Amino acid sequence: MSDPFVVIGGDAAGMSAASKAKREDPERDVIVFEKGEWVSYAACGMPYYVKGDVEDLEDLVAMTAETFREERDVDLRTGHEVVEIDPEREVVAVEADGDRFEQPYGHLLVATGARAIEPPFDGLDREGVFTIHDMDEADAIERYVREHDLETAAIVGGGYVGIEMAEALSAHGISVDLYEMLPHVLQPFGEAVADVVEDHLREQGVTLHLETAVSGFSGDDRVERVHLEDGDEPADVAIVGVGVTPNVELAADAGVEVGETGAIATDEYGRTNLESVFAAGDCAEARHVVTDEPDHVPLALTANRAGRAIGETVIGSPTPVGGIAGTAIVKAFDLGAARTGLLDEERAREVGFDPVSVTITAATRAHYYPGGADLTVTLVADREDGTLLGGSVVGREGAKRIDTVATALEAGMTVTDLQNADLAYAPPFSPVWDPILTAAKVLSGKLE
Amino acid sequence: MSDPFVVIGGDAAGMSAASKAKREDPERDVIVFEKGEWVSYAACGMPYYVKGDVEDLEDLVAMTAETFREERDVDLRTGHEVVEIDPEREVVAVEADGDRFEQPYGHLLVATGARAIEPPFDGLDREGVFTIHDMDEADAIERYVREHDLETAAIVGGGYVGIEMAEALSAHGISVDLYEMLPHVLQPFGEAVADVVEDHLREQGVTLHLETAVSGFSGDDRVERVHLEDGDEPADVAIVGVGVTPNVELAADAGVEVGETGAIATDEYGRTNLESVFAAGDCAEARHVVTDEPDHVPLALTANRAGRAIGETVIGSPTPVGGIAGTAIVKAFDLGAARTGLLDEERAREVGFDPVSVTITAATRAHYYPGGADLTVTLVADREDGTLLGGSVVGREGAKRIDTVATALEAGMTVTDLQNADLAYAPPFSPVWDPILTAAKVLSGKLE
Repeated sequence: MSDPFVVIGGDAAGMSAASKAKREDPERDVIVFEKGEWVSYAACGMPYYVKGDVEDLEDLVAMTAETFREERDVDLRTGHEVVEIDPEREVVAVEADGDRFEQPYGHLLVATGARAIEPPFDGLDREGVFTIHDMDEADAIERYVREHDLETAAIVGGGYVGIEMAEALSAHGISVDLYEMLPHVLQPFGEAVADVVEDHLREQGVTLHLETAVSGFSGDDRVERVHLEDGDEPADVAIVGVGVTPNVELAADAGVEVGETGAIATDEYGRTNLESVFAAGDCAEARHVVTDEPDHVPLALTANRAGRAIGETVIGSPTPVGGIAGTAIVKAFDLGAARTGLLDEERAREVGFDPVSVTITAATRAHYYPGGADLTVTLVADREDGTLLGGSVVGREGAKRIDTVATALEAGMTVTDLQNADLAYAPPFSPVWDPILTAAKVLSGKLE
Repeated sequence: MSDPFVVIGGDAAGMSAASKAKREDPERDVIVFEKGEWVSYAACGMPYYVKGDVEDLEDLVAMTAETFREERDVDLRTGHEVVEIDPEREVVAVEADGDRFEQPYGHLLVATGARAIEPPFDGLDREGVFTIHDMDEADAIERYVREHDLETAAIVGGGYVGIEMAEALSAHGISVDLYEMLPHVLQPFGEAVADVVEDHLREQGVTLHLETAVSGFSGDDRVERVHLEDGDEPADVAIVGVGVTPNVELAADAGVEVGETGAIATDEYGRTNLESVFAAGDCAEARHVVTDEPDHVPLALTANRAGRAIGETVIGSPTPVGGIAGTAIVKAFDLGAARTGLLDEERAREVGFDPVSVTITAATRAHYYPGGADLTVTLVADREDGTLLGGSVVGREGAKRIDTVATALEAGMTVTDLQNADLAYAPPFSPVWDPILTAAKVLSGKLE
């Protein structure tokens, strides 16, 4: 029997890999070291726990530690922190309950995830100031909201976490101020989406402070004020959601190569530069299907998929981890906003494309059928050969239509190909020309 | 100036072609002959007019005759029936108001549509027995429902028209009996969809009579009974929706070739076998993207797209009409059901594939997020190279996810390609693995 498959980190990528390897090769020893107590939890669900849509924090756990141990026969050890990787001797050093021991590995998967960026703000450790990246933080925010009478919330960062938290806190009757350094919220979704989302956030009572840098927080016992360049504003609670940074230190110390994005560099099978050492999930890079370059987009599906593929590869059935298109979707109160591929024209030019884009607004259902909504669709393509580069959608329904564009990107379709796709039409579901097709039609005309 | 572009038929294909040609080449004479009075109307919306969701029949008209004439400068002549095509002399003979005249053409588009099949039933002409294929029929049904006190409806045919009409008539408190000769409703959608839809129809109070042939109708003044092989059942109104047949006679008489499907044979530009004569819409065949063979699937998007392409081609910019995947979607009370591609395994084998299929049921949202529903997904692929052949979905939400599969078919993706598509995930919109991805994953496992 070969040496164990050792996994560092018990969330999406790690547990997917461990489960898959054990299922395909039950004889293989599979050991997962998780330094915390939560495993396989849906970080994306945390705002909905704070909002109150999800009753119990444990509902966010896709599969409990017990299930992994008993039903999947994975040797899952929570409260175990891997503190060193020795690639020469193929062992990891583990600390648990104050003890330290070594564990040899045949294959090693680094699935150490990412952590919330903590900007150099004054007063970041004041009571009532939170980041939101793990379950304990979600728990703490929910309790804080429940136990205090909060009038005003400061949310720092207009990415999806910030917007989801704006919705969550508004649902508790808290007045939300959202601070974003850039000119728009949801920067990776592009300006067409941002315009619609910003209008809607304002309609919902969120006060937007765009191009506004926060410098810190103050207050006596608890947070009371948020400090800006020119003055300060009240804040009874503050959520800092300015992005995540991959946890690469453990691997980097062992000589694992880190890419330009700051995440661990991997090949198409999720292998790092070190023999038998893989990386997947929020700590790792993945290949972007449009640019064909390494990118870092820490999202759940990528982690799950890569973990699963690596689980197959380590038991002798090499399976590519697949590329990413940077597809993302977010609920912003009553809107859905989604994006995929390459939307940033500057970035597109950097990698050698000549981007042309259109934005259209069309109805999600037949014009005479009750209920529909406007969907704003942006598509970007290369002028030369019409290759589709990316797209976005935003509206009160139909945001999952982004999947059509994401599928087209995976296939390397041109705008003309997409325009010819036989998408589904019936009055309750779509106009004859689905909004995606209308956008493709208009973009195609612009390319001629 | 070249001879006029003459179009026979003023609905989707005809008006799309006429509009496009005139827009791209305003100097070109474009004449449309429509034998009726309605143009460019949404036949698919008629059940919702009967149901009461659409207030005014004219709401179903995408663009009025006046708009085509005045804004689009198309010479649209309603009440004009083309009775003969003479391809030698390149003229059509037209009858209007009892007069007959000839009109020369440079290019001719046959867009004569289809008509409801009228089976050889006794008493088909009795009052209260309707087919539903044109606006006047929709109008008549709506009036009949409004003006009479109807208890029981007999719907003959379990295709999408039958199911939409079951919903429409139930909404008026009429008890619906649906008669289908085949073992299942929605035959082209496959058994996995039919099972779910049939259960739901029964829940909604529709009485299903499967494998039941209707032989006719009887009644004193108006229809009162529907006759079956073994007995009869009450019916205060009857809708016969057993499919459509293409209107090819005019073209066939002129020597236009009709394909094996019974519709007009066309090439990739919508050209028939006759010089300068095109055909598009419900009267014409189209190339199926999976089988690469001619097929006849009379649907609105195909008609619009082909018309538009032919409009470009006739003004000197040759544009393929595009293929079809037979994508269709239907609302059945609270369900959405959709299909695309090749689902029938027998047919798949006939055209040289070795089909393998899976059916899975998965949630449309994260398990902990409120509101989701089960979506049942079927995917079919070729065993040898994994090429995706078709798929279906059914559920209370998410039926438009079929577009992901339709796009994959257009691109010729394999199941593995589809499995690797970076589809959008966030708890309110999808589980981490979208149901389509889960189905692809399971099918992929079965192909190994």
